[in-house]
Amino acid sequence: MGILRTGRVQIRMTNWEESINYYKNVLGLIETAREDDLVYLKAWDEHDHHSVILQKADTAGLEHLAFKVESPEDLDTYEKKLNEYGVATTRIPAGTRIAEGEAVRFQLPTEQYVELYAEIEQVGNGLPIVNPAPWPDGLVGIAPTRLDHLLIAGEDVAGTTKLLQEVFGFSMAEKVVLEDGESYLATWLFVTNTPHDIAVIKGPNGKLHHVGFFLEEWNDVRRAADIIGKNNVSLDKGPVRHGITRGTTIYFFDPSGNRNEVYCGGYIAMKDHPTITWTIDKVGEGISYFDKDAGERFTSVFS
Amino acid sequence: MGILRTGRVQIRMTNWEESINYYKNVLGLIETAREDDLVYLKAWDEHDHHSVILQKADTAGLEHLAFKVESPEDLDTYEKKLNEYGVATTRIPAGTRIAEGEAVRFQLPTEQYVELYAEIEQVGNGLPIVNPAPWPDGLVGIAPTRLDHLLIAGEDVAGTTKLLQEVFGFSMAEKVVLEDGESYLATWLFVTNTPHDIAVIKGPNGKLHHVGFFLEEWNDVRRAADIIGKNNVSLDKGPVRHGITRGTTIYFFDPSGNRNEVYCGGYIAMKDHPTITWTIDKVGEGISYFDKDAGERFTSVFS
Amino acid sequence: MGILRTGRVQIRMTNWEESINYYKNVLGLIETAREDDLVYLKAWDEHDHHSVILQKADTAGLEHLAFKVESPEDLDTYEKKLNEYGVATTRIPAGTRIAEGEAVRFQLPTEQYVELYAEIEQVGNGLPIVNPAPWPDGLVGIAPTRLDHLLIAGEDVAGTTKLLQEVFGFSMAEKVVLEDGESYLATWLFVTNTPHDIAVIKGPNGKLHHVGFFLEEWNDVRRAADIIGKNNVSLDKGPVRHGITRGTTIYFFDPSGNRNEVYCGGYIAMKDHPTITWTIDKVGEGISYFDKDAGERFTSVFS
Amino acid sequence: MGILRTGRVQIRMTNWEESINYYKNVLGLIETAREDDLVYLKAWDEHDHHSVILQKADTAGLEHLAFKVESPEDLDTYEKKLNEYGVATTRIPAGTRIAEGEAVRFQLPTEQYVELYAEIEQVGNGLPIVNPAPWPDGLVGIAPTRLDHLLIAGEDVAGTTKLLQEVFGFSMAEKVVLEDGESYLATWLFVTNTPHDIAVIKGPNGKLHHVGFFLEEWNDVRRAADIIGKNNVSLDKGPVRHGITRGTTIYFFDPSGNRNEVYCGGYIAMKDHPTITWTIDKVGEGISYFDKDAGERFTSVFS
Repeated sequence: MGILRTGRVQIRMTNWEESINYYKNVLGLIETAREDDLVYLKAWDEHDHHSVILQKADTAGLEHLAFKVESPEDLDTYEKKLNEYGVATTRIPAGTRIAEGEAVRFQLPTEQYVELYAEIEQVGNGLPIVNPAPWPDGLVGIAPTRLDHLLIAGEDVAGTTKLLQEVFGFSMAEKVVLEDGESYLATWLFVTNTPHDIAVIKGPNGKLHHVGFFLEEWNDVRRAADIIGKNNVSLDKGPVRHGITRGTTIYFFDPSGNRNEVYCGGYIAMKDHPTITWTIDKVGEGISYFDKDAGERFTSVFS
Repeated sequence: MGILRTGRVQIRMTNWEESINYYKNVLGLIETAREDDLVYLKAWDEHDHHSVILQKADTAGLEHLAFKVESPEDLDTYEKKLNEYGVATTRIPAGTRIAEGEAVRFQLPTEQYVELYAEIEQVGNGLPIVNPAPWPDGLVGIAPTRLDHLLIAGEDVAGTTKLLQEVFGFSMAEKVVLEDGESYLATWLFVTNTPHDIAVIKGPNGKLHHVGFFLEEWNDVRRAADIIGKNNVSLDKGPVRHGITRGTTIYFFDPSGNRNEVYCGGYIAMKDHPTITWTIDKVGEGISYFDKDAGERFTSVFS
Repeated sequence: MGILRTGRVQIRMTNWEESINYYKNVLGLIETAREDDLVYLKAWDEHDHHSVILQKADTAGLEHLAFKVESPEDLDTYEKKLNEYGVATTRIPAGTRIAEGEAVRFQLPTEQYVELYAEIEQVGNGLPIVNPAPWPDGLVGIAPTRLDHLLIAGEDVAGTTKLLQEVFGFSMAEKVVLEDGESYLATWLFVTNTPHDIAVIKGPNGKLHHVGFFLEEWNDVRRAADIIGKNNVSLDKGPVRHGITRGTTIYFFDPSGNRNEVYCGGYIAMKDHPTITWTIDKVGEGISYFDKDAGERFTSVFS
Repeated sequence: MGILRTGRVQIRMTNWEESINYYKNVLGLIETAREDDLVYLKAWDEHDHHSVILQKADTAGLEHLAFKVESPEDLDTYEKKLNEYGVATTRIPAGTRIAEGEAVRFQLPTEQYVELYAEIEQVGNGLPIVNPAPWPDGLVGIAPTRLDHLLIAGEDVAGTTKLLQEVFGFSMAEKVVLEDGESYLATWLFVTNTPHDIAVIKGPNGKLHHVGFFLEEWNDVRRAADIIGKNNVSLDKGPVRHGITRGTTIYFFDPSGNRNEVYCGGYIAMKDHPTITWTIDKVGEGISYFDKDAGERFTSVFS
């Protein structure tokens, strides 16, 4: 049993038509289904029916994030653990969203909603499962391979971190500590062998800092930046290397004001490796290794 | 509980001094200890004391491979599972090898020896764990980041595959099937989110096809190839892309005749993804996607 | 006055329809005009109307290559110099080929036909000349940026080399010398700041070894190799680095049996730099630096 | 006859010891000679004795730049052309600087001093000229391959541009025009097949905007940026793509306040290609294609 990955995000879009166009043709996700106020998308190398749901809304932000677990039995187990931990849960019936089974929903101490789900239709990654080519033809836009992680904000970073560690077994790859050398400014948490499946940063409760998608290499970051330039996308930061995770990356905003990241590199995380600590005076190079300046917008804008 | 990774290989060297020099100065591993007939090495981004042990010997080949498990209790649990599965085990006392705790040793159906261990001294990756730079200065040679996987040979590919799946929970990323559409020519198995922590191919029992080390990107493969050229290393195959795993790679021989690989790319493997199947008529492009020719040497030379 | 570059090749195609499809959709040149037995193509970042003309024919090979000169007056000057040098010339009337002005035609000592031309319609590189983006959308296939060079064969390498140096002012970047330390196996000659606009190798008179197109970087070589694999193109050699020119490259055959190369890297050539010499015993690493083996096919097949 | 390249810059250093250390160990040039207040350096892949001279001084800035010409006779020819053009010249005797022959010195309309020289000792690029490896071992720091170009400032951009075109035969690759659609904000000029051997921008007379060095590819820009981060070098801008020249680049300051650039990419410039025009409203994306913001510091700081 266990969490397989951050499998899904549902993001609110205020600028509906333009946002749909952006996610499909600029970011380059693939539409797999559509309802009245929801558009279902997947990155090309994902097998599940969708990983991103756009939701028509009056405000930007994160409606919820969801972890895919190994089996339907995990829903019961994790629900019990959550309840014992003192977290209330609700059940989302199968079929509430297209192609999905039942989910368990709860709220983090930092107030984001999280769902757990085990069942989702698999539609494949556009390549045959017998004798596949290494990549499919016809990709559009930046075309990241997969939803990788997100960074959420809130007052109680320690609370959300502890819950994710104790209930779900996340390991901590890195942390930024405040002047006291102990309290968290931010934590990077993983269950896969990537440096973060989710990260948590001090900030306004319930807010989203960014949703991160994976690219294969540094040349893809340049290509992403070119496409950002070509399409007049609002660039936030990058291309730059993070000291934290070592990833090389670029941040930008969707037409509704949600921050996106496309990202590559970073080490292969292992739960027996020591957690890396960043002191608060070095957070600039932790975020932006080249110029050591995280930037005012990067540290203050959430959706 | 569980297997963390393929943590160690012990490889026999016939050409002792030249092989030590090669592993340190050409492949670019770092020596951490030495005994009479053993040299302990690690790749730079590993934290454990060593991942490769060179052993002075009369024949080349694999003395054993070892999986690092999460805790000493896992040794008991896996030993019990192995015995119940019908596999005999022995205990290797702590301190038999420098910086290591106790190990459990057993033999695969394909006759390689495998050890399980939980305890090994951590010496770090050459970077501080507080505010680290993204890479250390002073690396030498090809300098892969880590031991990644190995490919072992034997008659009973199905037997070794089944044992790794059932006792240790390996998932199968890919397989090559013979004309009957079912029997394995080879299997690629993982516990981490990489496409293979170990792979098994039809061939002479107990033999090693190659030990694979990880590089970060395609430019590093070219740099490795340049270093291979500069140092008159015997090149086997590459640079090339594998259809299988999508990795981009180069194969070459150490001075004792053991095949090494340095490798990058490949997807992020997930246990809920479908296993990819290669049919025997397409094994050429599975191994060597550009020219579709695995090459006689690649498929016939083992150590 | 002077030669601007190797501006054009006309290549004979035996496998007509398949070859047209290959040059357009696999190699990724852009068709700009067509006549009965001629298809005119350009690489995307070239401004002239065409750089490659495919000619329907019974045998593969090079109909002619052509140097673009700076001005129509250069035609007269070079014709005079050629005649004084003892080389007969003919005039090809303007309009013989679509979008071209007059040309001067002559034969090299190695028997290839060469034309000089100054006038050709400019159609642009698909980007505006006011505020252009860095690259155009909609490219197809390998999509090299430009025709770069060709390698021609013949008995009298010294004769062709001398003519190119003395009449046209080519400089020699590199040479391979035979056992006598003096006679040429091959020479690499340039007028631009690239290591070769044309190269000459010992072999059958009048023959073509390959036509080389330019890529921007090593990742493009891998992408080219993937496209070669996807399209079942006959791969000859690579990806590999040349010791000669330092370029990184891949060779393959068009459907009519003419060898193509796509290539990147190499130094910026300067006429005051010393000519690099390769001795005949090192020609393997000069051609194929990683494995030091040029390969039998590479050194024996011409069209 | 003609100009071979921008062969040399002499730059004033106020922060003497730290600047020497920076140019040798961070930027990674190689010291070839030293006098009291001058340090002679070369980039590794240059053959001439030096391309950069550091001069101990009270103010930062450009002492002079120098074009290498083909032959000593060119000095006479260009001196005559300059004088006829109305530009005064002086002769710098051979031996004034280590390893150099005689030079002709004059001042541009934008007030920078320029020298022409033909003779300089060749020391090679660290590789043999017989059977060389593709790159030498032992490089330090960023290690660009060569001095590429510089950008100089002044009031009379048109005057300097015209002189370089008419006296020396420079071609114009690109230009930024002011609101009138005609006057130059800046021009990019070349004699080699690179998009600029020198560029000129509106600004304070006699001033230097930056000295640019060449890297082979985008991965080298990231590596340069990492080294900048590791060594606390003051980063100005980048990594970013220029719309102008298409180059990908990073700008930073030496310890004396002179701006350096390391740069790769860009097209192969040809004198028969059309000049690209940037309108003043698009200068942001001309300089910084990803975010379309040149930045206040980039456009206002000169040395």
